[in-house]
Amino acid sequence: MRNDRISRWAGWGRSENALTLKERPGLLAYLRQRLGDFGEPIAPTPLEQVAAGPTRLSEDDLTAIRNAVGAPQVDTSGPERVIHSLGKSYRDMLAARAGQLTGVTDAVVFPRSEDDIVALLQVARKRDLAVVPMGGGTSVVGGVEPRTGKHHAVITLDLMHLDAIELDTDSHLADIGAGAFGPAIEETLLRRGFTLGHVPQSFEFSTLGGWLATRGAGQQSTRYGKIEEIVQAVRLVTPMGTVSTRRVPASAAGPNLVQLIAGSEGTLGVITAATARIHPLPPCTRFSGYLLPNWPTGVGFIREILQTGIRPSVVRLSDAEETRWMMKAGAERKGLLHAVGRHAIRAMMRWRGFDAEQVCLCLLSLEGSIDSVALEMERVSQYADRHEALRLGQSPGRSWLRDRFRLPYLRDDLMARGLLVDTLETATIWSNIENLYGAVSHAIRSTLTAGGCPGAVMAHLSHAYPTGASLYFTFVARLPSGEELNRWIAVKQAVGEALVRCGGTLSHHHGIGCEHLPLSAENGATAVDALRALKASLDPEGLMNPGKLLEDRT
Amino acid sequence: MRNDRISRWAGWGRSENALTLKERPGLLAYLRQRLGDFGEPIAPTPLEQVAAGPTRLSEDDLTAIRNAVGAPQVDTSGPERVIHSLGKSYRDMLAARAGQLTGVTDAVVFPRSEDDIVALLQVARKRDLAVVPMGGGTSVVGGVEPRTGKHHAVITLDLMHLDAIELDTDSHLADIGAGAFGPAIEETLLRRGFTLGHVPQSFEFSTLGGWLATRGAGQQSTRYGKIEEIVQAVRLVTPMGTVSTRRVPASAAGPNLVQLIAGSEGTLGVITAATARIHPLPPCTRFSGYLLPNWPTGVGFIREILQTGIRPSVVRLSDAEETRWMMKAGAERKGLLHAVGRHAIRAMMRWRGFDAEQVCLCLLSLEGSIDSVALEMERVSQYADRHEALRLGQSPGRSWLRDRFRLPYLRDDLMARGLLVDTLETATIWSNIENLYGAVSHAIRSTLTAGGCPGAVMAHLSHAYPTGASLYFTFVARLPSGEELNRWIAVKQAVGEALVRCGGTLSHHHGIGCEHLPLSAENGATAVDALRALKASLDPEGLMNPGKLLEDRT
Repeated sequence: MRNDRISRWAGWGRSENALTLKERPGLLAYLRQRLGDFGEPIAPTPLEQVAAGPTRLSEDDLTAIRNAVGAPQVDTSGPERVIHSLGKSYRDMLAARAGQLTGVTDAVVFPRSEDDIVALLQVARKRDLAVVPMGGGTSVVGGVEPRTGKHHAVITLDLMHLDAIELDTDSHLADIGAGAFGPAIEETLLRRGFTLGHVPQSFEFSTLGGWLATRGAGQQSTRYGKIEEIVQAVRLVTPMGTVSTRRVPASAAGPNLVQLIAGSEGTLGVITAATARIHPLPPCTRFSGYLLPNWPTGVGFIREILQTGIRPSVVRLSDAEETRWMMKAGAERKGLLHAVGRHAIRAMMRWRGFDAEQVCLCLLSLEGSIDSVALEMERVSQYADRHEALRLGQSPGRSWLRDRFRLPYLRDDLMARGLLVDTLETATIWSNIENLYGAVSHAIRSTLTAGGCPGAVMAHLSHAYPTGASLYFTFVARLPSGEELNRWIAVKQAVGEALVRCGGTLSHHHGIGCEHLPLSAENGATAVDALRALKASLDPEGLMNPGKLLEDRT
Repeated sequence: MRNDRISRWAGWGRSENALTLKERPGLLAYLRQRLGDFGEPIAPTPLEQVAAGPTRLSEDDLTAIRNAVGAPQVDTSGPERVIHSLGKSYRDMLAARAGQLTGVTDAVVFPRSEDDIVALLQVARKRDLAVVPMGGGTSVVGGVEPRTGKHHAVITLDLMHLDAIELDTDSHLADIGAGAFGPAIEETLLRRGFTLGHVPQSFEFSTLGGWLATRGAGQQSTRYGKIEEIVQAVRLVTPMGTVSTRRVPASAAGPNLVQLIAGSEGTLGVITAATARIHPLPPCTRFSGYLLPNWPTGVGFIREILQTGIRPSVVRLSDAEETRWMMKAGAERKGLLHAVGRHAIRAMMRWRGFDAEQVCLCLLSLEGSIDSVALEMERVSQYADRHEALRLGQSPGRSWLRDRFRLPYLRDDLMARGLLVDTLETATIWSNIENLYGAVSHAIRSTLTAGGCPGAVMAHLSHAYPTGASLYFTFVARLPSGEELNRWIAVKQAVGEALVRCGGTLSHHHGIGCEHLPLSAENGATAVDALRALKASLDPEGLMNPGKLLEDRT
């Protein structure tokens, strides 16, 4: 059993890192001003008070499972089953806080090898068991929810023991077990002078297998690519056999199977290992921060940088609302803009004629050789001038870097105070960014308003490409107790429809799970039927992660 | 009917560009020295003497087809059917020269729109017809061979009319019809200051749809990516409906369907259009040429360039045999090395202690802003010094650029003289390059030797990645008349087995078609069964391009 999962099973991360609004009084005051008064935090239900219910596995089932993987690798205790029965979505956290899960897995199995998994899937086939593969369990789309489908019980595979890492430094590749966590991977690579370049916000608590199953993106994906571009080869154990793609750098031998397995969300089989592209540590990293007079100008600034051939590692443009939030959310003495002097900035903004209500914060990070970073920085500065950007130097970026793993903890305190808080992300092409930004903002805001919930909607643009970018929305609202799930569902539905209608995608880097509109809304029935047929070939009994990705919502 | 196809139906390209050994006397002499004497060229069978046989389509079939697309779009004349019944592989050219095709399509249909194709596939379903989509017809793996499968006749779709091109310059994207040819695409983009960056050797005679169906790579793929990386969205008309992927720059909504359609080789449906990433023309392009003391040093030189983060557009390292061939193959007055003075180079090589039998030619092309090219050139020069490379300046690269579309024509003259001549390509990771290079060279050489055929085997490394590269082999052999096909099959088999055994891929950029080992040899039966199930969902009657990619060899 992992301490991380226990200590914060109804919240994010590790207890010692928890962050509350009390520590960010500026933000607390701002929220009260925006939303009206809301309550003091209420603690979640303690884990030991949550009823797991009896396992639906028979003694014969358990014997077969234990014979397959070894008895010590099988855990049917209540708390272990409970903490392996949810991810970290708003819906999950609502359920966890209330101590009322929609379903609890019937056993947690900790395979030690690929052979264990092969054996286990054969047991699952014979004994009619659903199987949910689980890495770090940080899904925000319901990806690890234990559903039985048409089977009589469900087992969850915790892949933590599949964590071997082996480097081929000649080829700049690493073979990495699916259960290896971000820090372990990065530390191993760092020791040899390399980096994977994949740092999602869940980095500390998520695994290579989870990243790949959901097509995740790290904060530096603009330079290093999303995980499906980072991974060159993959191994997938399915109920019908193992698929192992060749480790070649590129191929024309049929469709790219890596890209079929990436994003399969545990529905085709268990990803056991992948071969990932690794990069020598860049000799030079340089942050720069800017204030842009407004959102469209900021979008144009980033578009120009990307389309000129520069690939910053971090690219982040906050809209006006998020910019205000970030200014308020900073710790008193090391706030995001503190170091560069708020007063000086306000004076500069006035002098430049910026409207304080419109101003947008932009963070960039350039990486590479000293020479190439200098050359790119020079060009970025020219574009900054052209877009009337106010330069803030390196401090805002460094503040962001320091705070980046802390801010997700704030959700727990907001939820504890009864606020609705969630994020969602999408992507579109540059010519459609304004349209989609407006449509999604409107969908959230109008749904909250229609429900009588005063709310704030903010967004940032990140993960930029020469052809477009991701948009990441955050919304917070005050709502009547008991209305949390209904209001959240209404927003999700409205947003999903806006995304599909207005040229977005249902997800840029979190996957579909069971909380988004069905995949057919994104890709049409013909394509989804074809993927289902493919799944049926690999998993004829439909054991693998029932109810996710390819199945219509229940 | 297209004149290109008629004028050179039994050979490469356009008649006015034909190239014979007589124009490259140095090479002719060298070949005679290496292989012994061989004959004067014999002309191929004229098109009008090739028997197409009667069409197997009934009058009712033809009426239904004509009703679907319009009568003028349907051609059942013998010559039109014959020239649409083969690609440009060695096997195709043997058959064409002899005037004995293994199969002739029963009608050529020229759809003018996606709706035409939708209607046509419904006719094919109802009337039990196989359908072969065809772009430029330059497949070198038998990809457009008209096989009926279990159907009573086969129609070939020539997609030349689906050639619309529309730009979204804000997003650096172009919507391009599947039937648009390389020059038309590039001219349209050039007028707006853009390039696709995709220039395969077949560029003049091949189409976007064909490139994508076979996962092609252009000569500048090291910088611009293979076609499956260039394409961001795609439309596929299948017998069961149309799949249209969203135009977003990236997504996590399930597996990447573009990558499922790329490499499908017409077996899932007809690719009708794609949205491709386009690039502003680089302000600066700089060629540089080098002589490396031997092959392993050259491989190390290129590996270092790629792994340091530089992305040349063209990367090409010829092994010692190909280097000699290229020196001989140059035209008398503008040979590849002529411009830099052969004598001076020989003197330099002697002075450096190079073994003339081992020396390898390397060509690079850097693109970008003037500043960035200068910076990269400086670094490349440092690596060149470190690898003891002799610098040849820009001339060899310019010569290659001038000659690059001409050399494929030489095959026709070699074949006309009864020589076996073919190429094959693969890819692997850097740590396996030497092993695979040795294994494939040995497989070709030993098979030729065992067959009593004196031959020459040469290779170059190109399409380089930070993790590995493509290897492209050429072999020429003198063999007894009538033994051409047998010897060729023996070599193909031996090479396929070596590729699978030694960590290569059956193809890096030409696809599988019906001339390689079956796809299961590359990816295993489980994966191929899954792809077949997916195909069965989109094409339940198995109309689409029977006998290719997913089917076992007949």
